[in-house]
Amino acid sequence: MASTQKASERLEVLARQVTAGQATRLVVDTKEMKDFLVHDNKELREAVYEFLKDDLYRPNHYQGLMDFREQTLVRLKKFVAQKFFSVRDYTNDPRRFIAALEGLMYADYSLAIKAGVHFTLCGGTIAKLGTAYHHAKYLPGMDDLTLPGCFGMTELGHGSNVMGIETTAVYDKEAGTFIINTPNDEASKYWIGGSGQHGKICAVFAQLSVGGQWQGPHVFVVRIRDDSGRLMPGVRIQDQGPKMGLNGVDNGRIWFDNVRVPREDMLDAFASVSRDGTYTSSIPSVSQRFGTVVGGLTTGRVLIASGGVDGVKLALTVAIRYGCSRTQFGDRPIMDYVTHQARLLPPLAQTYALHFALGHLKGLVAGRRAADAKAIHVLSSGLKAAATWGRVEAMQDCRECCGGMGFLSSNKIGPLMTDMNVDVTFEGDNTVMMQQVARALLDDKAALARGAPAVPAAGALSAGGASCSKAVQSLLAFREQALVAQVAGEMAAAATRADGAAAKAAASAAAFDRNLDVVVSIGWASMERFCHANFLQEVKRAPASLRPALALLAQLYALSRIQRSLDFYLAAGAINRADVAALRAATLELYGTLTAGGPRCAAVALCDSFGIPDHLLQAPIAFDWRKV
Amino acid sequence: MASTQKASERLEVLARQVTAGQATRLVVDTKEMKDFLVHDNKELREAVYEFLKDDLYRPNHYQGLMDFREQTLVRLKKFVAQKFFSVRDYTNDPRRFIAALEGLMYADYSLAIKAGVHFTLCGGTIAKLGTAYHHAKYLPGMDDLTLPGCFGMTELGHGSNVMGIETTAVYDKEAGTFIINTPNDEASKYWIGGSGQHGKICAVFAQLSVGGQWQGPHVFVVRIRDDSGRLMPGVRIQDQGPKMGLNGVDNGRIWFDNVRVPREDMLDAFASVSRDGTYTSSIPSVSQRFGTVVGGLTTGRVLIASGGVDGVKLALTVAIRYGCSRTQFGDRPIMDYVTHQARLLPPLAQTYALHFALGHLKGLVAGRRAADAKAIHVLSSGLKAAATWGRVEAMQDCRECCGGMGFLSSNKIGPLMTDMNVDVTFEGDNTVMMQQVARALLDDKAALARGAPAVPAAGALSAGGASCSKAVQSLLAFREQALVAQVAGEMAAAATRADGAAAKAAASAAAFDRNLDVVVSIGWASMERFCHANFLQEVKRAPASLRPALALLAQLYALSRIQRSLDFYLAAGAINRADVAALRAATLELYGTLTAGGPRCAAVALCDSFGIPDHLLQAPIAFDWRKV
Repeated sequence: MASTQKASERLEVLARQVTAGQATRLVVDTKEMKDFLVHDNKELREAVYEFLKDDLYRPNHYQGLMDFREQTLVRLKKFVAQKFFSVRDYTNDPRRFIAALEGLMYADYSLAIKAGVHFTLCGGTIAKLGTAYHHAKYLPGMDDLTLPGCFGMTELGHGSNVMGIETTAVYDKEAGTFIINTPNDEASKYWIGGSGQHGKICAVFAQLSVGGQWQGPHVFVVRIRDDSGRLMPGVRIQDQGPKMGLNGVDNGRIWFDNVRVPREDMLDAFASVSRDGTYTSSIPSVSQRFGTVVGGLTTGRVLIASGGVDGVKLALTVAIRYGCSRTQFGDRPIMDYVTHQARLLPPLAQTYALHFALGHLKGLVAGRRAADAKAIHVLSSGLKAAATWGRVEAMQDCRECCGGMGFLSSNKIGPLMTDMNVDVTFEGDNTVMMQQVARALLDDKAALARGAPAVPAAGALSAGGASCSKAVQSLLAFREQALVAQVAGEMAAAATRADGAAAKAAASAAAFDRNLDVVVSIGWASMERFCHANFLQEVKRAPASLRPALALLAQLYALSRIQRSLDFYLAAGAINRADVAALRAATLELYGTLTAGGPRCAAVALCDSFGIPDHLLQAPIAFDWRKV
Repeated sequence: MASTQKASERLEVLARQVTAGQATRLVVDTKEMKDFLVHDNKELREAVYEFLKDDLYRPNHYQGLMDFREQTLVRLKKFVAQKFFSVRDYTNDPRRFIAALEGLMYADYSLAIKAGVHFTLCGGTIAKLGTAYHHAKYLPGMDDLTLPGCFGMTELGHGSNVMGIETTAVYDKEAGTFIINTPNDEASKYWIGGSGQHGKICAVFAQLSVGGQWQGPHVFVVRIRDDSGRLMPGVRIQDQGPKMGLNGVDNGRIWFDNVRVPREDMLDAFASVSRDGTYTSSIPSVSQRFGTVVGGLTTGRVLIASGGVDGVKLALTVAIRYGCSRTQFGDRPIMDYVTHQARLLPPLAQTYALHFALGHLKGLVAGRRAADAKAIHVLSSGLKAAATWGRVEAMQDCRECCGGMGFLSSNKIGPLMTDMNVDVTFEGDNTVMMQQVARALLDDKAALARGAPAVPAAGALSAGGASCSKAVQSLLAFREQALVAQVAGEMAAAATRADGAAAKAAASAAAFDRNLDVVVSIGWASMERFCHANFLQEVKRAPASLRPALALLAQLYALSRIQRSLDFYLAAGAINRADVAALRAATLELYGTLTAGGPRCAAVALCDSFGIPDHLLQAPIAFDWRKV
């Protein structure tokens, strides 16, 4: 009890300091931090922001669904006309490609997604899986939006299970064309963004058969509407109508009835069919080819994750500025309350952590080294899930911390979080994404052979470890390793009890399935360990003047993630009661440092450093709530 | 490790049973359960549901904001014309009043809230704080909606702090009228539902001065628009425009400039001003009078909490039916996965727990016994917060568990959760509501005098306690008591260290403030303990055939709440590692029982028992996802 008592007294002193505005004040040079946060394409990003000053991009929450869709198309056309980038950058200069699109979500998420479907999913697929013929035939029309594109992968019956899609593409040797068919309603292409009204071409995933031989999913560029917007013969599209948000995007459901596609329009970078019906591929197995075909989703996931982090940046900027200026019950700003700090400051630290982690991932994507393929797969899956699940929670907290003001559309948080709610299940359901991370770890036989990790000795945090990064680093790494060892152990034990290879594999898979909740925790633990380690690298890389603030955020990130998993650490014996008290005391101290100074506190400066321009921030309460 | 191993093997057996559909199947008689869940006014509720079959109440997500508002008014008018109830029932038959309004949210939350503001907040205030004069003058026009009413309490600068409102009402003896003024922009009435376009009267909260003497907040019925809808002289209203949801409700901001209100229009059940300017009240102190004036929010909170629970009922019915029929990766329904079960089944148990708890609270409200006043205050505050915070999380999980289908408006979960997002901060911010619960417990000197509670011995759950209710009951009670003792101890210690009464009070208040996160946990712990104890009473009260299912849900509710606070129990030593494993095994066993039988499983039957009629459920995926 001694240490609890000590922690409690320390807290009281700290609380008095904070209340009196005497806590250590952290100075953050907003301009310098902003510079450090933007890794690439600064001028391009600024140019996009400047362009978005155009009145066309001002929110209009009064209009009905059909008007909003038309407005989104008009907005996209004007953006495209600026020629900030080309679809070819998808492969030639991925950083530029990503940078040009990232800013759009601050204007409107529907616009960002409509652009993302067209450029990233459809355009990127043609750029990556197509060859010179397709590039010449389609990319100019995609660059000027005369050929709005869709991405026909998901089917009604097959969302997460892409390998199981049922749309067929049969090669007709006589005619030299593929015949695309939707064999049943469950095989209809579902959720196809941009296909409801505007799309003219679609990158269609279908099971290819050549000469009666099945070759697995391949991609075909299918014309779905003609130049004047009329449906092509054999193509039936049902508008999917209103959604809870993102209503500027026209999603549709597509059926194909003997639609003929020229032989040349199969994307053939990795596989092709000759005129006489000979199938050749540089990748021999169906499953490996499948991996290549769906691998194109990576850039989309990076953009979705990045959008999630940017959405939180905006929400935090609004909520923290408001919290530091809004008073209630006298002159006390609401940001003074622990409950407010505990809801807004850990997400602030997490946002920095995820921003840097995604920066690292973008570097890997741009580097295009074969050796990074696995890391790219793991990080794009795990960070997509962590960033978007984190966004759901953080934006809801931001909205609540603004009270009713957070519900008002003009303050942006509310409508943006509604639009973005889609991000946890599209481009890969988050539960499945976290499984991808865990599978990669469970497949690492060398790591598993080292067995369960040693339990860090409890008491490290209360002995001062809560204020240094070493102790928290080993705790984060321990959780990842221990959870992997736990699931791997159960899978191996189940296999041991079964007879025969097939039964062993089935028993192991069943053990994986019944630990699916732990599997998802592995994904989280892995991303947390990575984000923190990467954050510490960024602290080293940063200019000296920024290091105190960044180190503090890295520490808050780690402490708040450890607090989330206290039950795990306590049960494992890696943390004891005194550590729990020390953790709380250390966290409250960090809150005090971040909020000291009222409206000029470090927390506000760290939000301002995100660099969201006023005309895109918009929210009246982020400026002067008394003048709403 | 022995017990962990044992638990793990047990799990495996269980998992095999579930997969093979061999787990104990729980039979639930849907009709009987439905009957048991509806405590009162069955015929009235059925009549409202039947009425809502009218095409006017079919969702239309295509329209723009202004059309939606008009449609909401037309919907309300037609509902009102049915005369299902009268505003007078607010005091005469509160159960009837609540029952008539509760069903509306299944049709549309904007309609429910527009009705709630008019009938509950404005009408209820006039019914309760007014006298015969006001009842005769206003209630007929409220009953037939010729006098749409608003509730003018909140001001821009004063949300949670109602006592601090700045609108003034000065009695002018010469004219025999009150003069209502908005002294500054922060004193403008803010968020006033129904005032943006349609409201004609407003129950305005203002600081009363009579003969230069301040008497605290009182309520005045102010005419804000004339019969033809033109603003009254001195009244200025700004339409607050679009919100993230609930756009059928026209919120407005109101300023009063020397608005004259006849002396008779002050609601005078507890205080009145005579023609010659003599102020009299049956309640001597300003603070007690204030309590009476704002006490009228209770029914509103009951309705909001009830709406939150009903929203989850709808979302669970859709998500669980879909989860049990939707297959992926072969014929396996997605409800088979632990991750799916862990997201949907604890909320199912919680929904039953909260439904019964609110039933108990409605009984107290209807009983109107003075001795219940404190319990009503605590429960209406705490259940409002628990129900709406629980709703945010449960509906998000339901939406995610439906994948993209949950994002589609036609499946209802998405738009409903967006509309309802307001409920966590209106009618009392949830953080403040939980504080109310904690304050009541911290004020209970007799209970505090008994000191910190004894720590339940760890090991109870692994010794079989996870399957009986005694062990979990004592754990839930322990947490509430221990947290109260902790905060009370810190407050007392802080006071001891200060000198003088004022300093002691300030030190105690500061200790309360810096433990605000623990204070909120007290609110949760208290509601959980109450909901579980009340649930056990309902199990006893239930027909024998329903008891197995209800007892299982009560147990799942308790176990899942204990799992939420594992860090607390582990740190306190009330639970050990073996208990954690036993808890997990017991929970998974309950999941297995609830989901055995696929689409005919108990979980589906327990949703069907909520009795939401098909025409209000609507969601295509709740019926046959293949035919969307």
